[in-house]
Amino acid sequence: MSKPVLNVGLIGYQFMGKAHSNAYRQANRFFDLPAEINMHTICGRNEAAVTNAAKTYGWKNVETDWRKVVANPEIDIIDVSTPGNTHAEIAIAAAKAGKAVWCEKPIGNTLPEAKAMLDAVLEAKVPHAVFHNYRKAPAVALVKKMIEEGKLGTIYHFRAVYLQDWIADPNFPLVWRLQKEIAGSGTHGDINAHIIDLARHLVGEFDGVWGLLHTFIKKRPLAGEIDDKLGAKASDQMGDVTVDDAAMFMARFKNGALGTFEASRFAVGRKNKNSFEINGSKGSVVFNLEKMNELEYYNNEDPSDLHGFRLIQATEGNHPYAGHYWPVGHIIGYEHTFVNLVADAVTNMVAGKAISPDFVDGYENQRVLDAVEQSSEKRTWVKL
Amino acid sequence: MSKPVLNVGLIGYQFMGKAHSNAYRQANRFFDLPAEINMHTICGRNEAAVTNAAKTYGWKNVETDWRKVVANPEIDIIDVSTPGNTHAEIAIAAAKAGKAVWCEKPIGNTLPEAKAMLDAVLEAKVPHAVFHNYRKAPAVALVKKMIEEGKLGTIYHFRAVYLQDWIADPNFPLVWRLQKEIAGSGTHGDINAHIIDLARHLVGEFDGVWGLLHTFIKKRPLAGEIDDKLGAKASDQMGDVTVDDAAMFMARFKNGALGTFEASRFAVGRKNKNSFEINGSKGSVVFNLEKMNELEYYNNEDPSDLHGFRLIQATEGNHPYAGHYWPVGHIIGYEHTFVNLVADAVTNMVAGKAISPDFVDGYENQRVLDAVEQSSEKRTWVKL
Amino acid sequence: MSKPVLNVGLIGYQFMGKAHSNAYRQANRFFDLPAEINMHTICGRNEAAVTNAAKTYGWKNVETDWRKVVANPEIDIIDVSTPGNTHAEIAIAAAKAGKAVWCEKPIGNTLPEAKAMLDAVLEAKVPHAVFHNYRKAPAVALVKKMIEEGKLGTIYHFRAVYLQDWIADPNFPLVWRLQKEIAGSGTHGDINAHIIDLARHLVGEFDGVWGLLHTFIKKRPLAGEIDDKLGAKASDQMGDVTVDDAAMFMARFKNGALGTFEASRFAVGRKNKNSFEINGSKGSVVFNLEKMNELEYYNNEDPSDLHGFRLIQATEGNHPYAGHYWPVGHIIGYEHTFVNLVADAVTNMVAGKAISPDFVDGYENQRVLDAVEQSSEKRTWVKL
Amino acid sequence: MSKPVLNVGLIGYQFMGKAHSNAYRQANRFFDLPAEINMHTICGRNEAAVTNAAKTYGWKNVETDWRKVVANPEIDIIDVSTPGNTHAEIAIAAAKAGKAVWCEKPIGNTLPEAKAMLDAVLEAKVPHAVFHNYRKAPAVALVKKMIEEGKLGTIYHFRAVYLQDWIADPNFPLVWRLQKEIAGSGTHGDINAHIIDLARHLVGEFDGVWGLLHTFIKKRPLAGEIDDKLGAKASDQMGDVTVDDAAMFMARFKNGALGTFEASRFAVGRKNKNSFEINGSKGSVVFNLEKMNELEYYNNEDPSDLHGFRLIQATEGNHPYAGHYWPVGHIIGYEHTFVNLVADAVTNMVAGKAISPDFVDGYENQRVLDAVEQSSEKRTWVKL
Repeated sequence: MSKPVLNVGLIGYQFMGKAHSNAYRQANRFFDLPAEINMHTICGRNEAAVTNAAKTYGWKNVETDWRKVVANPEIDIIDVSTPGNTHAEIAIAAAKAGKAVWCEKPIGNTLPEAKAMLDAVLEAKVPHAVFHNYRKAPAVALVKKMIEEGKLGTIYHFRAVYLQDWIADPNFPLVWRLQKEIAGSGTHGDINAHIIDLARHLVGEFDGVWGLLHTFIKKRPLAGEIDDKLGAKASDQMGDVTVDDAAMFMARFKNGALGTFEASRFAVGRKNKNSFEINGSKGSVVFNLEKMNELEYYNNEDPSDLHGFRLIQATEGNHPYAGHYWPVGHIIGYEHTFVNLVADAVTNMVAGKAISPDFVDGYENQRVLDAVEQSSEKRTWVKL
Repeated sequence: MSKPVLNVGLIGYQFMGKAHSNAYRQANRFFDLPAEINMHTICGRNEAAVTNAAKTYGWKNVETDWRKVVANPEIDIIDVSTPGNTHAEIAIAAAKAGKAVWCEKPIGNTLPEAKAMLDAVLEAKVPHAVFHNYRKAPAVALVKKMIEEGKLGTIYHFRAVYLQDWIADPNFPLVWRLQKEIAGSGTHGDINAHIIDLARHLVGEFDGVWGLLHTFIKKRPLAGEIDDKLGAKASDQMGDVTVDDAAMFMARFKNGALGTFEASRFAVGRKNKNSFEINGSKGSVVFNLEKMNELEYYNNEDPSDLHGFRLIQATEGNHPYAGHYWPVGHIIGYEHTFVNLVADAVTNMVAGKAISPDFVDGYENQRVLDAVEQSSEKRTWVKL
Repeated sequence: MSKPVLNVGLIGYQFMGKAHSNAYRQANRFFDLPAEINMHTICGRNEAAVTNAAKTYGWKNVETDWRKVVANPEIDIIDVSTPGNTHAEIAIAAAKAGKAVWCEKPIGNTLPEAKAMLDAVLEAKVPHAVFHNYRKAPAVALVKKMIEEGKLGTIYHFRAVYLQDWIADPNFPLVWRLQKEIAGSGTHGDINAHIIDLARHLVGEFDGVWGLLHTFIKKRPLAGEIDDKLGAKASDQMGDVTVDDAAMFMARFKNGALGTFEASRFAVGRKNKNSFEINGSKGSVVFNLEKMNELEYYNNEDPSDLHGFRLIQATEGNHPYAGHYWPVGHIIGYEHTFVNLVADAVTNMVAGKAISPDFVDGYENQRVLDAVEQSSEKRTWVKL
Repeated sequence: MSKPVLNVGLIGYQFMGKAHSNAYRQANRFFDLPAEINMHTICGRNEAAVTNAAKTYGWKNVETDWRKVVANPEIDIIDVSTPGNTHAEIAIAAAKAGKAVWCEKPIGNTLPEAKAMLDAVLEAKVPHAVFHNYRKAPAVALVKKMIEEGKLGTIYHFRAVYLQDWIADPNFPLVWRLQKEIAGSGTHGDINAHIIDLARHLVGEFDGVWGLLHTFIKKRPLAGEIDDKLGAKASDQMGDVTVDDAAMFMARFKNGALGTFEASRFAVGRKNKNSFEINGSKGSVVFNLEKMNELEYYNNEDPSDLHGFRLIQATEGNHPYAGHYWPVGHIIGYEHTFVNLVADAVTNMVAGKAISPDFVDGYENQRVLDAVEQSSEKRTWVKL
């Protein structure tokens, strides 16, 4: 008996397009899923580029108009992996067309956009997912399990940073990610969004925030050509940076825990340090995406002469996801967080269950992002 | 030709008394100083205890009334190492008596106290020092030197924590450090004060702060006997915790850098993690007191395929202070930060130069502590 | 213009079959290769199991008799991924049939087998490769490049371990890897072979060895069912362990460097620690497969107050292989070493160049393995 | 009631003289010992230098002829801290004079010397000690305790290195430590001796060894002036290096464990890496002197999804020695290993008990050193 097939239409073909394509290609190879994923159509405005992407990544069809993909009755899932300013339009149209909508984060560039998107999928009663992929690292999923089992006890502190350095050079050009009208915000929506999601997932909902957004370099050379992080070259003309270079905030959670968050693209030497520490009454954990197969864990119930942070290699057969890959000590990589997310999403969607994370998570995330921005502007705390 | 002798009178004999005694005993053994330190008199209210301390630590005389030590014409330096609520009275009296005043941090329990103490030493024109000893770790002094030489370039971020866990257990008793009237504040004055000093020393003066102080456990068993961190035992009666358990804040520095600070005694698993990271345009450094002989350093001018944080062992003969001790790779410990501080203080005092850090540093530190407390109460930022 | 197609026939479907299948599936998705790899046929004796593997991993055809795969004129490459005692027969037949032969390591269970295999591919003039995949980790390839550029200077020391702990429990059953007639040897051929390959690749040829092989647990419960590392269950009967549990040796290289090697399956806590340190006159490097995206590098020409081992994240666009995957700081995993190996092998094979590593490497590796075994038996050094 | 006084006569005033002086000065300040140590006399051939050392380190008397110190009836303990070629004569004379003899390691430059020294102290029935100080690091003493309590189970592997790089530069001059007639051997006696002592202390006696000693640089510039590690300057003339630059060996222990040992002064980047790993059936530990306050510990009985090497900070009040110093998380340094050794030695000597380590340890150590040298020469294993 053959499995049902899920046809995916992917809108976008850059960095996230590559990562999502890989996830669709690999999920059935490592997980015994209730459906076969079919890489049906990839869509982008530049025909040559998207045709090349289709060939490289293994998509069967190419389209340059996302509306045609949304209208195609063969398609089951619309994956929205375009820059943030186009998410809402595509996602709402897809929901209205009755498609499952799987969207990159942050779901909208503004809170009203995110609300409209959430309303659309709820009204259309279609499956929805957001690609907060870091929940799906085995080490992070292990933390979730430990918290649910009470291994950390009462949580006192959540302490997270997401640090990069790719624009620390003042001559780095004004790419789209530095323009508010396209990107929505800077580090805040791009990378704070990730650690906010991890905080909500692991600790719970926010009660209030104190925010501070800052732009170190206010003018940059215009980019000759807009490209993803790597490609653009500087020109002679200067333009305004309209997003934040760094975004930090303090928080109270509803359950009484305290949080600190810091995102920066000026943390010279830090390439992709998405890291958190949680201190609870019974134990603590530390995670760093750059060493994503590892988890540091302190068990407060160990004897006091033998206690210490232990370095768990989250590659055991009984760790979340890890058993689907390789024997213990043989690590997986960044791309596998997407494979795991897609595997979970397919499983839940076929079973008629909510996907985690979904548009509710996307919307709640945006509420926090928005509150932090308000706090930074008003220089007071903001209650959620 | 023999060296001049500096007679020290030490008020206090607990944890800091032990550390300071060791520094006075050892400084001349490792440094060729312009004066010999003489451990003249140790003073405490409990005669048996202070007599025992004198014998153990090597003091020649014992006194139970600090006023007599201050009045003793043989004494050159009064070292104030008592709990914070007695600092001002002793230090001001010592200044008036014309003694050099070396004081534990924070210098006063309140900003007015600190101001009065600063005024007293300035008016009396006596040498003054404050024991912000962590400036004197070789790795920290190396950071200072690197910054002065421009090796970090423009500083963007200062990110510091001081994390401990010794009161995470709700049954830990209400020792003096948890009582505002004696200790002044909780983590804030005790350990945030240290990372504020490092920030001022390494980055510069503060421009404004956003603070959040919090007490997780508001009632604790009364301690049968007040003792330093280790000694007290819980009784059946409960009392109010009147200080903060955790104190975090965000800051802008006058030079445009951003800062985050977090102090906690509820960071389970962290014993004494006094750690900071500085990100500058030309490089970054990371320090952690628990590994105080090490410094992580990222040189942004290394080739991009060979760059990374390097682990400097700050034990080379050409590292600050390190050449006075052992060959490279043979580490020193916590106590040596005090030895180094005393060596520097003696050198500068004999030369008629200002000691670093001094009461100006103590007072400015308290201004920051005070602004953070205000910000936390008012829930708005506070400009300095 | 479409690319030529290379049809692969894979013999074996267990752990290595899974890893190789993934490599064939992914290589064209991340590398722009001169040929398309076609996953033509997978072969195994258990028809149900191999059929399932074909479906899971994406092979088009299934075969239970390897001779038929070798005889199939459509097949270009025979991949030999069976247990070691069958390598020689299959590989020699494949060479005689004019196929390219890509073989798991160690190529033979004995030195004469390895010699016969090498002779066969040389005589048949067919392309040949051996899956010493760890050469292809970006960090290891970076070391190779650094050595070629002279960055390490004269090499003094190579110091390697390959440590696991999966049979430290005396009740772990007598699986095929513990039986000499199937596995050839224990840790020695299984994991010492890997660090020997890295030594030859990075440092050069061996001059002489002092070996010590040891079996800690000489009898184990018979396994009810022979399976790869994980599957077998213990029965009541005991059998003889006929391979080594640990294999260590010291070596001189022809270029004057010294080496130490240690492989063990009794290093409790070590899951897959394939680690080496190289000390040269100009610098040193440290690699550990469990943290395979990282390389520690000490540059002896750094100023003496700023030197230290730096942690290179081998994920930069200009690091070997890394640019084909994700942006800096987004790590890859174990499986990518095979993808990289296959990409290199396809490139070289199409260009008519020798593949690295090839059967010459496989044979030379076996010479070292053999010399160490002899040394251990005779308790004297053995010259190569 | 005052304590008895132990008068010490120290022969030697260089690096070890400084370290031992500090230990005698500090031991009574941190430990409540059954006797007071009196720094009676320091002795060296260079009167100006030794006079200066006496003043700096705090000795009461100065002597230039060790025979007079040995003959002085006031002296209780003779501490032999001279270069190795003078140990035997001094120690034997001291024993005959009825003094306690505390000697630096290795006790003699040859095995017969060591035997004669052991015989002398046994015949004279005087207390004897050897300064294998690393036994006394809290983390190492914790390992000893863990092994005695069975926490590591059956020991399978001991794996140690002692790596330095101070003579990797071929132009470093021919100091006394590179001359066999003074130093006895190179890395072997200087630093392998330390890890051999740790092996004997922690694992047990050796059964047999396979050794390989090597000299990379066979000629070096003569030093104008012989000094300790740092001081000597190169001249134009060249001389022969008559000791080993690196010394490695494999070993079997009598209890069935295997060992690997490697000492080198050519491990560029390693300053003082005295490090070992022990793998036992129930757990493993890792120690590195450069991070001497830390111990990595893997508990094989932890649940398999939560196991990992934990980083114990050996600074808890209930860790060996640590409670005598500072609160948890406040580290101690290299010099404290000597303080601890002296504290233990005084305690045991006053109680009439054997000191650990003593001349038996010194002699047994030398037997291993000697066997390794023989093995290296003969290129066969040597049984002990």
